[in-house]
Formats: sequence, C-alpha cells, structure tokens
Amino acid sequence: MSTPTTARGLEGVIALDTAICHIDGVKGELVYAGYDIAELTSHCTFEEVAYLLWNGQLPDNSERRELEQRLCAERALPPMVHELLAMTPEDANPMAVLRSALSLLALFDAEADDMSREANYRKSIRMTSRIPTILAAFDRRRNGLDPVPPLTDGSTARNFLYMMSGEIPGEAAEKTFDACLILHAEHGLNASTFAGRVIGATLSDVYSAITGAIGALKGPLHGGANIKVMDMLADIDATGSDPAAYVRDKLARKERVMGFGHRVYKTVDPRATILKEMVDSLSSERGDRKWYDMSVAIMDTMSTEKGLYPNVDFFSASVYGTLGIPTDLFTPIFALARITGWTAHLLEQWEDNRLIRPRAAYTGPLGKTVGKTTVAR
Amino acid sequence: MSTPTTARGLEGVIALDTAICHIDGVKGELVYAGYDIAELTSHCTFEEVAYLLWNGQLPDNSERRELEQRLCAERALPPMVHELLAMTPEDANPMAVLRSALSLLALFDAEADDMSREANYRKSIRMTSRIPTILAAFDRRRNGLDPVPPLTDGSTARNFLYMMSGEIPGEAAEKTFDACLILHAEHGLNASTFAGRVIGATLSDVYSAITGAIGALKGPLHGGANIKVMDMLADIDATGSDPAAYVRDKLARKERVMGFGHRVYKTVDPRATILKEMVDSLSSERGDRKWYDMSVAIMDTMSTEKGLYPNVDFFSASVYGTLGIPTDLFTPIFALARITGWTAHLLEQWEDNRLIRPRAAYTGPLGKTVGKTTVAR
Repeated sequence: MSTPTTARGLEGVIALDTAICHIDGVKGELVYAGYDIAELTSHCTFEEVAYLLWNGQLPDNSERRELEQRLCAERALPPMVHELLAMTPEDANPMAVLRSALSLLALFDAEADDMSREANYRKSIRMTSRIPTILAAFDRRRNGLDPVPPLTDGSTARNFLYMMSGEIPGEAAEKTFDACLILHAEHGLNASTFAGRVIGATLSDVYSAITGAIGALKGPLHGGANIKVMDMLADIDATGSDPAAYVRDKLARKERVMGFGHRVYKTVDPRATILKEMVDSLSSERGDRKWYDMSVAIMDTMSTEKGLYPNVDFFSASVYGTLGIPTDLFTPIFALARITGWTAHLLEQWEDNRLIRPRAAYTGPLGKTVGKTTVAR
Repeated sequence: MSTPTTARGLEGVIALDTAICHIDGVKGELVYAGYDIAELTSHCTFEEVAYLLWNGQLPDNSERRELEQRLCAERALPPMVHELLAMTPEDANPMAVLRSALSLLALFDAEADDMSREANYRKSIRMTSRIPTILAAFDRRRNGLDPVPPLTDGSTARNFLYMMSGEIPGEAAEKTFDACLILHAEHGLNASTFAGRVIGATLSDVYSAITGAIGALKGPLHGGANIKVMDMLADIDATGSDPAAYVRDKLARKERVMGFGHRVYKTVDPRATILKEMVDSLSSERGDRKWYDMSVAIMDTMSTEKGLYPNVDFFSASVYGTLGIPTDLFTPIFALARITGWTAHLLEQWEDNRLIRPRAAYTGPLGKTVGKTTVAR
C-alpha cells in the first residue's frame, strides 16, 4: 500500500475526469462541452443545452424536436406525488418537498432500476420534465390554489412560469427565465454534483443519486446565495433606503454585501454579464423596474467602493424577484436547471465507473474495555 | 494555487479525521470509539453501541435507560408515511421505499432544519427509532397484512422482529439480531457514510444527508453482498446440491463464491467469527439448522480449497435466512443498523465543518461555436 495523501476537505485533489464543463476563473470563462456560455445563451434554448450536456453535442433539428416532444410528454405526475403535496404542511421546506417527491417518482417508474444508458437517459429527461410540475403544484397548493396542469407543448421555461401563475408568460419573461436555466444548468464538480457521483458510483440508481444531490444543494453553503441577495433587496425596499447609501453603510459596518465576488471567478462572473442585459428587457416588459434599478445602483456602488463584480446570484435574484417568484423557490429553481448537469455527470460516471472512496485518519483512542457499569447481554 | 494531486476515485486520499471507527485490515481489527468489536458484542446492546458512536463513550445506567426510553417513545410514524406505504406498489424496491419514507419524515419534523447539536442528536435517535417501523410496515403491507404497531418497550432488535412477524422473538433470535445490528452499525468512511458527509458538509440537514446515504447503500457495489450469499444458499437448497460439491464445481468453473475475502480484511473478518457462533445457537432455538449447516460446509470447503475466510456478509445471510427475513430486506436492515454510524459521522462533521469538494480535470473540447443547424432564440 502506498503512502496516503492527506487533503482535508479534498481541496486541490482531482477526483475524476469530465468532458462536461470547463471553468477558467482567471479568464472568467464557463464552457459546457466545448461551447462558451455566452455562445449558448445567445443561440440556444435550455432544451438544446440539456441535449448538449447529455450527449456531448448539440442536437440537429430532428433530435431537438424529438427531445422537446419527450420533455412535453412526461410532465404529468403520478397520483401519489399529488397526494404527497396535498398532505404536505404549507410551511414545509420546498427543498425537502422536492427531495421527497423526486424520491417517490422512482416507486412509480418501471425502469427506475434499469441501469442501461438508454433507460438512464430516459429517466434524465423524465426528471427534467417533472421537477417543474412538482414545484409549481407545491407552490399553488400552499397558497390554497389548485395546481395548473402542465402545457402539452412549449419550452420548460414557458411551461413552468405558466404553471406557477396560470398565465402564459411574456416573451422577455420566457426568454430570461430560459437563459437563467441555461446559466444554472451546470457548473463542474460542485458539492451536489459530487454527492450525486459518489452515490451513482456504487451503481445505485439515478433517483438515489439525484435525491442526494438535491439534499446537498439544500445546504446554505451551496445553494441559497441568491436568497440572501433577494433578502437584501427586499430590506432596501421595505425600509425605503437609497441603495447606494445602504451599501456604503453596510461596508462601513464591515458587513458582507451578498452577490459579489466568487470563489472561482477572479474577474467578472460571465453569467452575471449575460443576465444583467436580460433583466433590463424583462423589467420593461413587466412594467416593474424596481429590482433592476436597485441592483444596478448596488452594482455601481460596489464597483466604485470595492472594485468587486457581481456574480450570477446577484442578477438571478432580480430576475426571479421581477417574475414574482417566492424567495424560498430560488434554490428549487436552481435544481430545476441543474438536474440536466447532475444527470449528465451520472451518465458520464457510469460510462467508465469506479467507486469514489477516500479514507479517513483515525484520531480516537484504542484498547478500551467495557467496565462493570454497562449491562451484560 | 498549488499543483493539484490527481487521485481518481480518491483512492488512498485521506479526506478527513474521525474518532468514530478504526479498521486494521492486516490484524483483522474493527474498533468503535476505542472498543474492539468483540468487546462490544460480548458486553453491550445495540442501544449502548449507538450511544457510544454518538457520544464517544458508553452510557452509564441512567444515560442508557434514558436513551432506551427515547428510542421506544419515537417508534410511531406520521400518518403521511403510512399513506405512502399504503400506496406503494408491492413490488417496489425496499431501499427506494426506505429512502422516500425517510425523506418524508422531515416534512413532519418541526426541528428538521434545526442545526443545533442537540436537535441533530434528537433527530438521530428519532430516525434510528423509526426505520424499523417503516421496514416492518412495508413488508407486512406488501404481504397483504396489517402493520403491527411497535412495542412500547424492549430493544430495537426485539421490536423489529416482533413488528415483522407479530410474535415476540426467542432469546437467541433477539440476541443474534442485536449482535448483527452492532456489527453493521459502523465501518469507517465507506461510500454511504462518505456521501452523507459530503451532503452534510454543505450544512444541509440530517434528513438530506441520510436520504443520500441510503441511496448510496442501495448500490450493488456497496450494500447487497449478503443478498448474493443468500441467493447461493437458496440455489444449493433448491437444487438439493451437496454444498461442498457445489462450491468445488463453482471454483472449477472459475466462478466467484460470494461472502469470502474482503477488500479491507486481509485475515479473518472479525465480524464473521462473532456471527458464526451466534448463528449456531439461533439455529438450535429455531429448530432450523439448514442454513447454518450449509454455511459451515461451504466455509470448510473454501478454507481447504482456497485458504479464504468468510466475511460478515457470509454469516449474516444465514442469520437473516434462519430468521425468515426476505432477501430483499437484507440491505434495508443494514441501513437500520448503519443509521447510527451515519448520524455519528454527521454529528462529528458538524463539530468542525468544512466543505468536501475535490476537483475534476476537463478532458473535453474548447472553442466550439453554434452552427446554423440550431435554432436561434
């Protein structure tokens, strides 16, 4: 046995190879399977990007249409999931609801334990199709409203916004939400993707792996940063503060302003740049420029005062806020997009599987004996 | 940034420190928080061992009684879980059912998202208490029987065997099953424990982490080895073969005989030695020596022919077989025991948390552009 490497938290250790995502934090580049993220948000839909992540190449027209049709056809939920949502307390954590509902889907999927690539690909599509239905039905029910049945055609973005509100969204709303889904679809070996691959590497099924990934994303150290941004925007709004003054006050008190800087991106987060323009058009369409104007004022102040750039969380908060989405659905919507990246990583893992199993160093005592104080069997 | 270490599958990398479990494969030693496994199975109950794993020391008499009372008091399930079990298809994968039911428990636990050590400890007890009820109720229902309400006192082992059959188990049955629970309670940083810690390290809640761990244990590369042993015993039984001849035939065909040798233990698996003696008494109590005698014959043949020792899976198959437990519940019963180790690892993780986040090496293309074949937005 060779000498073990010690790397607590596995920092700086390369655990696996991937052809799905490349991030260059210094250059501010995010690449999905060879395509820069700006290229994808400019020219592709979320469905095309899902195809890219799953298959390593963009679809041709017939492949795209086939995927779109399959995504539309799988939107309805098994009755048990509606039963669950009907019995779920209205103050339940939406990520716990999503985790439970996703796990339940397996019990009503005849190919849940079929580990062929074809079956796993079909299940990836199925989950991508059903997560929006779960989230919208949960949100409607907790507000005392009947769930809106899914559209039988149209994009994931359009269908989700429709199921949330009962109204077909405007063009800018659909386009911006679609871009948000693309921007959140994939981001390398983050904690939830890694959790999913660790589970999948035991050759457990895709529902088990995704249930675990949702659980990891639920953690405040992983998902949740855009919630804190929205809380800040809501606080500025509720107190009627001037955004620039609010930020300068926060900085003077040495408090952190959420949504700026990034662990990986040392320059601009490319996703923030893309979102900013889209929120501008969206705000005009919705006739509500409040969150956008506030965000730009904060951004300018942070640039002047600290030289810091906004990250993807910063502008996704104003997108979702402008769309009227409740703050506690921000992380579930992250999952709605990331399901494509998670399942792409699982398909990749299973192409050339090996267990992912580090070691622990034992630091406890040895050689203790049971005293007379405990009961003999 | 320092040069990254490449360690695919994280083999040989020490990811964290632990004071919970020590394994010396060369010496054949398994130690929980300082106590050798033989010491614990000789002198302690599963409940005392659970206390040891959670607290780092064995309980005194009043601590032991308090834990036993709390475990007994928490056995009933929320109505939603019974609803789920009533609607679950009878051929559902028991691990998928357990994963879903465990996830659902969070929706009805007011302190699900309370991350204090006290609350997480209470939830660890609660899950340990409820998993047996979930499994027994599922098994009764799929056989068209009403679930048996849990006992209001007595050990986890006694209560589980009672809920399965509706009959109070004999002394040897309770004692042997209790020992099986101790032997499976903990085994270091295996894939399910690691998955749980990765999820927990995002500061996600204990239900999320355990749901993920159950998903990992479901994988055939992790749990499930004793199922293959039982399948072999059942095959010998069904074909009326002589066990020694069956094994020699298998070896002659270069087929693997399940339940022998171990990745970690290079000598005897200490857990197998402990179990062998217990299965002997259990078989006498049940008046059914079939599986035991068959197992001993196989063991002797493997020793003569290959010089290989049985592992814990080998004898746990005959324990569960003799107790009449269906084969597809072997892995869920593993979870029933391992919940104590999993939660102990989470309590330890959160005492000094750091994210567990390795890196991936990108091996895909770069600089691709979207051609005219895809649809512009």
